[in-house]
Amino acid sequence: MKLSNRAYNIQASPIRKLMPYANEARKQGKKVYQLNIGQPDIETPQVMIDAYRNYNEKVLSYGPSQGLDEYRKGLLGYYQGLGIENLAVDDIIVTIAGTEAIVLALYVVCNPGDEIIIPEPFYTNYNGFATMTDIVVKPVTTFAENGFAIPKREEIEKAITSKTKAIMLCNPGNPTGTVYTKDELAEIVDLAKKHDLFVIADEVYREFVYDGLKHTSILDFKDAAERTIVVDSVSKRYSACGARIGCIVSRNKDLMAAVLKFAQARLCPPTVDQLAANACFQLGDDYFQQVNQEYRERRDLVYAELQKNPDIVCTKPGGAFYLLPKFPIKDAEKFIIWLLTEFDLDGETVMGAPGEGFYATPGIGKDEIRLAYVLNKEALKKAMHILLTGLEKYRSIE
Amino acid sequence: MKLSNRAYNIQASPIRKLMPYANEARKQGKKVYQLNIGQPDIETPQVMIDAYRNYNEKVLSYGPSQGLDEYRKGLLGYYQGLGIENLAVDDIIVTIAGTEAIVLALYVVCNPGDEIIIPEPFYTNYNGFATMTDIVVKPVTTFAENGFAIPKREEIEKAITSKTKAIMLCNPGNPTGTVYTKDELAEIVDLAKKHDLFVIADEVYREFVYDGLKHTSILDFKDAAERTIVVDSVSKRYSACGARIGCIVSRNKDLMAAVLKFAQARLCPPTVDQLAANACFQLGDDYFQQVNQEYRERRDLVYAELQKNPDIVCTKPGGAFYLLPKFPIKDAEKFIIWLLTEFDLDGETVMGAPGEGFYATPGIGKDEIRLAYVLNKEALKKAMHILLTGLEKYRSIE
Repeated sequence: MKLSNRAYNIQASPIRKLMPYANEARKQGKKVYQLNIGQPDIETPQVMIDAYRNYNEKVLSYGPSQGLDEYRKGLLGYYQGLGIENLAVDDIIVTIAGTEAIVLALYVVCNPGDEIIIPEPFYTNYNGFATMTDIVVKPVTTFAENGFAIPKREEIEKAITSKTKAIMLCNPGNPTGTVYTKDELAEIVDLAKKHDLFVIADEVYREFVYDGLKHTSILDFKDAAERTIVVDSVSKRYSACGARIGCIVSRNKDLMAAVLKFAQARLCPPTVDQLAANACFQLGDDYFQQVNQEYRERRDLVYAELQKNPDIVCTKPGGAFYLLPKFPIKDAEKFIIWLLTEFDLDGETVMGAPGEGFYATPGIGKDEIRLAYVLNKEALKKAMHILLTGLEKYRSIE
Repeated sequence: MKLSNRAYNIQASPIRKLMPYANEARKQGKKVYQLNIGQPDIETPQVMIDAYRNYNEKVLSYGPSQGLDEYRKGLLGYYQGLGIENLAVDDIIVTIAGTEAIVLALYVVCNPGDEIIIPEPFYTNYNGFATMTDIVVKPVTTFAENGFAIPKREEIEKAITSKTKAIMLCNPGNPTGTVYTKDELAEIVDLAKKHDLFVIADEVYREFVYDGLKHTSILDFKDAAERTIVVDSVSKRYSACGARIGCIVSRNKDLMAAVLKFAQARLCPPTVDQLAANACFQLGDDYFQQVNQEYRERRDLVYAELQKNPDIVCTKPGGAFYLLPKFPIKDAEKFIIWLLTEFDLDGETVMGAPGEGFYATPGIGKDEIRLAYVLNKEALKKAMHILLTGLEKYRSIE
């Protein structure tokens, strides 16, 4: 039986596609340090776990399609605490993780065949969301050499067509770790105004910025309230990827009314997980301070290790928990497979995600590897040593 | 700012759209018996609640995109217990409720613009899923007078075009309560073979069949394994609508491989909710026997009340927890609004869902109301008395 074209065309996850090699390596007794998946090892806050443990309703019923009232009020307080003004509860709809927030944003902004401009490299699942919503991703390339800085205005303008409906950004960036400044974002907002576009900002790594940098939300641009949309999630913020709770935020009332209609069709986000996410608002500032410090130290460690090899190109990223170094090799995917199948250092090896999968432009990023610093420092140090030792050996035989 | 066409066109939920009238009635002190939403009052099994209460991991991490292994094995055992043979764990992918199962099925079966044949009246959110996946619903009308029996073969054949990719059924039916016999389903399967179509069966009410009827799963047709897809959910089965756990089941390996790629893009279903759903497999047969008896008694009660007015057309439905009677009025929506705004019996009134929203063909179903028997018998008896009293009064002034 013939399936749909989209069934054949949808991208397999480049983050997960080499997992069979890792599983095989483990079967053969190798220890594999996994830096390929953004699954943090940081403990989920106990208040969140306790919220599951305290659940005690008689009927686990549907919640409102827009999310539980108490959680939406909690979210409003959270955004107000970030300094975001003029926001109301009805500007927030709870979603099934950041995933659904992006898909809903694309549905209401784009007709099938419309285009979204995204700086590449970008979070690879955006491709899947584009297939789901039948839209076209127009990449604007950024480069390891200058820390994947936001594309120049004229580069973005070159990509705009009559079908362009939005510019989408991930800030801080996955897979780059790049943090955009307020001035850079102001340029994007200005461009969006000029060409009547929406700006969709994926800000799920908001709290993870280092070196005294300050995160700027796209919602801070109050004069562009009608055209700015934030997609958000508790997955990384509270190390709770399995909760599948996110939200979409916009002050555009018509847009949120349309999002609600889509949300009604899927009825509601999971109820107990919303209660668990809501419990996280009990956490004090010290929670993020601690997590932030831990990630910063890990980034410093990984970055310092990469610096030991002058042939590796990597600018120190200011946020998230990823680096995307450029390696002195031709094909990173082959290198990763080689690390898993042919190499080990005292029975241990390491795994990253091939960079190519984070680009929409064919053929670029083939020498890049995304490294997620989601292991403790001791493990990271070992993993980096194995990676760099493996790299030298691989180059000698490539 | 202009939104997408689909943002404007997606159907608002006809089940929920009159809720503002109910809320207003409550504000004015009226008691409203809500029969409009399929939110069961039956208690969620304690083993399921306990699974939330026993959750105690350090990190609430991503699960596999296809669902937790232990839950998929539990599901396999459940289907085998129903007598479904030749099924493997890889034929099952856990979804975010039945909603996502349907959306995933439509993605992999249909290109944008392709058609699905569905007997109407049908579960109204199918319209939303069609908008999301950019497909076209071709309804084949069924009728209250003969209990919304499955359409005749020639009626279905008339609706088939070169763009038709599947026939979708809900069995037992929402909003009709109709249970399809094995012979009726065999006809559908035969038709699907002749025209090379998939058959998608929404079987979320599988356990709720009465009067000694036996439910036939579309998976029972082993000679059509390549073209049959079941979409399923724990929402109604275990009175756990807020868990958002469902699954998609098919023995078509290519189809399931494509479903997995879409599932990878959204990462995973919620983790703790899967553990909670998995706990339900500890329940003995007596669980469904009790729930089944309770629903059957309610159906008998509602049906007997409706029989008191000979102008109401209603055939006794064999399953689910809905009836869709045809009332001797012109516009059921107006009647329901009138019940909420202008009528009460000792300060109490009642609410149903207008039938029109369950039809894709414009203008039909306007005299029908879906009644969900999701209240206890005492409340249902009162609600039905109020409905019939209101009906007489409304007819005298309509």
